[in-house]
Amino acid sequence: MSDQHILSAYDRDLESIQAMIMKMGGQVEAAIRDAVRALETRDSDLAMKVRVGDRAIDELEQLINEQTARIIALRSPTAVDLRVVLSVMKISANLERCGDFAKNISKRTGVLLESPPIESTAATVRRMARQTELMLKDALDAYIHRDPQLAESVIDRDVDVDQMYNTLFRELLTHMMEDPRHITACMHLHFIAKNIERIGDRVTNIAEQTVYMVTGELPTEKRAKADHTATETIDFGA
Amino acid sequence: MSDQHILSAYDRDLESIQAMIMKMGGQVEAAIRDAVRALETRDSDLAMKVRVGDRAIDELEQLINEQTARIIALRSPTAVDLRVVLSVMKISANLERCGDFAKNISKRTGVLLESPPIESTAATVRRMARQTELMLKDALDAYIHRDPQLAESVIDRDVDVDQMYNTLFRELLTHMMEDPRHITACMHLHFIAKNIERIGDRVTNIAEQTVYMVTGELPTEKRAKADHTATETIDFGA
Repeated sequence: MSDQHILSAYDRDLESIQAMIMKMGGQVEAAIRDAVRALETRDSDLAMKVRVGDRAIDELEQLINEQTARIIALRSPTAVDLRVVLSVMKISANLERCGDFAKNISKRTGVLLESPPIESTAATVRRMARQTELMLKDALDAYIHRDPQLAESVIDRDVDVDQMYNTLFRELLTHMMEDPRHITACMHLHFIAKNIERIGDRVTNIAEQTVYMVTGELPTEKRAKADHTATETIDFGA
Repeated sequence: MSDQHILSAYDRDLESIQAMIMKMGGQVEAAIRDAVRALETRDSDLAMKVRVGDRAIDELEQLINEQTARIIALRSPTAVDLRVVLSVMKISANLERCGDFAKNISKRTGVLLESPPIESTAATVRRMARQTELMLKDALDAYIHRDPQLAESVIDRDVDVDQMYNTLFRELLTHMMEDPRHITACMHLHFIAKNIERIGDRVTNIAEQTVYMVTGELPTEKRAKADHTATETIDFGA
């Protein structure tokens, strides 16, 4: 067996786990899109489809973990190859969590369908979701094309998602104050918004891992944390 | 250099990253304990200490990541040694998230101190926190003593945390319905409870990684998911 042959089997291994990441990324993109569409169109079947589909995402993560462990054991990767393998593990863990958040959105959609819609918030949720979907798409593109500039731009855009979340948090508090019958629905909507905001955080992690994979360094700038709701009081004149 | 010597340097490497995990675990235990004590005693200085201290936890995770990558590159571990190294990476990522949750609890405590306390909920939060602290302690013990039975018992106990969270969720909704002036405080308390519940989930992950490290298999039983609030409607007669 020549070195050439060994090298090429190795490359195939690396390509194979990266193909699995892209497959998983596609499934997670679809889950987020469907979860938000189900919320928007009040489609309980579509929401259920997302909940059921999460199992396939979880299984793919498991498979990726097994494959990466196998590659490390078999090929003893070093330098950039090791970074590729370790990044794959981190990225698949982040994608798996994004899938969980989409599933959770769908569960809460099931409950929300039992109450009348809270109109003004739908647009903000949709904008937040659209922004995170685009971020995920670009993070996966940056990963597959090994483009740290695109990855950095994804990291920068997370601040917009956080700001939209802040706006929605205030809107929901106002709704609850105005009419306590909205409280249950608003609590679920709030969690949905928080889930989308968390998807943004996870996509940011994926982009950071891409920068690490290509450059060997995590992005130097500490990410701006723009979810201020944890430290904010809102004055309702109450 | 004899094989003996090489083996022993390798063992020292593995011991060193495991010692780092225990150090990190101790810091995270302290952060959770202090965050909840600050909430309970309305101690803004202690809350601030937790927020500031999270940086040390983050830095330790970074260091563990670097060390594990170095060990993989240098030592090409296989079989159980590889499982140890990969588990260390996963466990440190979970501990880092627990630290983030403790920090978030402390941020929200800062806000809550501006409102009068909501008495009846404090006891439930304290019980939840106490349960997760014990789970974390046992998960770290199970890890260091390589005790899959203890790890499995930690996994089983997460259902209690989830049930306490469900109870608190209902209590908070009732408070908000009864007096809309409580809404902002209740939203923050709810997030605090959710953060504790998430710490429980992360500790469960740590216990699962311990089972994997020792046995080479993740626990077969899918974890019981007892947070039903995502799919629950509460009847207020509203």
